[in-house]
Amino acid sequence: MSSTDTLNRLAAVIESRLPAHGGNPDASYVARLLHKGPDAFLKKVGEEATEVVMAAKDAEHGGDRIKLVNEVADLWFHSMIALAHFGLSPADVVAELARREGTSGIEEKALRKAQAREANED
Amino acid sequence: MSSTDTLNRLAAVIESRLPAHGGNPDASYVARLLHKGPDAFLKKVGEEATEVVMAAKDAEHGGDRIKLVNEVADLWFHSMIALAHFGLSPADVVAELARREGTSGIEEKALRKAQAREANED
Amino acid sequence: MSSTDTLNRLAAVIESRLPAHGGNPDASYVARLLHKGPDAFLKKVGEEATEVVMAAKDAEHGGDRIKLVNEVADLWFHSMIALAHFGLSPADVVAELARREGTSGIEEKALRKAQAREANED
Amino acid sequence: MSSTDTLNRLAAVIESRLPAHGGNPDASYVARLLHKGPDAFLKKVGEEATEVVMAAKDAEHGGDRIKLVNEVADLWFHSMIALAHFGLSPADVVAELARREGTSGIEEKALRKAQAREANED
Repeated sequence: MSSTDTLNRLAAVIESRLPAHGGNPDASYVARLLHKGPDAFLKKVGEEATEVVMAAKDAEHGGDRIKLVNEVADLWFHSMIALAHFGLSPADVVAELARREGTSGIEEKALRKAQAREANED
Repeated sequence: MSSTDTLNRLAAVIESRLPAHGGNPDASYVARLLHKGPDAFLKKVGEEATEVVMAAKDAEHGGDRIKLVNEVADLWFHSMIALAHFGLSPADVVAELARREGTSGIEEKALRKAQAREANED
Repeated sequence: MSSTDTLNRLAAVIESRLPAHGGNPDASYVARLLHKGPDAFLKKVGEEATEVVMAAKDAEHGGDRIKLVNEVADLWFHSMIALAHFGLSPADVVAELARREGTSGIEEKALRKAQAREANED
Repeated sequence: MSSTDTLNRLAAVIESRLPAHGGNPDASYVARLLHKGPDAFLKKVGEEATEVVMAAKDAEHGGDRIKLVNEVADLWFHSMIALAHFGLSPADVVAELARREGTSGIEEKALRKAQAREANED
């Protein structure tokens, strides 16, 4: 089973939970977040990003890396709920990542910025 | 080209930037972040999550949804740098998402928690 | 010198950097953030919150607590820039905190919510 | 009533909720967070920072500024819980802010960094 299958299938499940598609907030966690609106799922995006940071800091200090996988999964999952609300999908995100990959010079530009920043940090 | 191909290929590029794989911090943005260590790329994860939230709030108020796609791409990209540092990959995250998809009752449990929380919010 | 003096004096400096008060973005970091608008300083709020979390995780694992003080100072400082942009001040925040302190039952309500949440986490 | 009185008094209440001071996790929200440990209150710091960002974005689009005051109060309050856990207080944060205020050149250095960054963003 490929990643694309999993992400696309997951996106389809999330889309089916949209209010416009009959998602029932009393029967589904995703439908509930979508029903409550942007602040509900965006708050979760901020919360899960914080949990990614904490899990990574624990891993840095010898903790279990599996926690990091779980937290990144939570972060990506809640990002996908936000995308679905706005009629977007993980396929759009992956297409953007592919586009950047194909554009030469992207990393070089980011690098020049980072170097300039660092040169001024002393 | 499938999502899995794109994510896996991107992960391979990121892995090639690891210090242990000869990544050159003076020639690559990713190598630079990996060279500086966890705080450098985790700070970016927090920053990009904030940008996702801001782009979504703008979209909610009529702004361009493309900004949201770009910010989620940035967030996922920097998450992948964190994964690479700890010897993990997007395939691990997608496998975890697939595992949850296959586990009945996940959404129901999250739902019961959310309902209990809400019942106590008045 | 009291905390109120320090916070109020700092707020006055930040307010003097507002574009409407002649703040010069080429001569002041605060004026620059205020001139660029909400996304610029809100991104910093998200970034500094992440740095608070990382400094606290380091302190938990034996690191220097001074880093945590510095990062909370950064977080509060950038919150104050956001407040100033919207015509608000730390005095408003402190008044809200005082109001809550005087309202009996606040902690009890938060507690009931937390207990209900936890009861459903098993 | 001055800010210093409010912040110091609030810090004293939080400190009295520490496990070592007999704080009862079944009777107090703060005692409960402190009892659960760093991840519990740090997650709240990340969550409240996200809510500050959302409230500011709403205010930018015409929403009520009072929400922003409330969210900054929540953010500062949970920062104070983190400080208390590590034996620190808002007085330490305010002292650091006062120290910076007294140090000439701080804003100028931050400015040079911001300018260098921006110069490389085109």
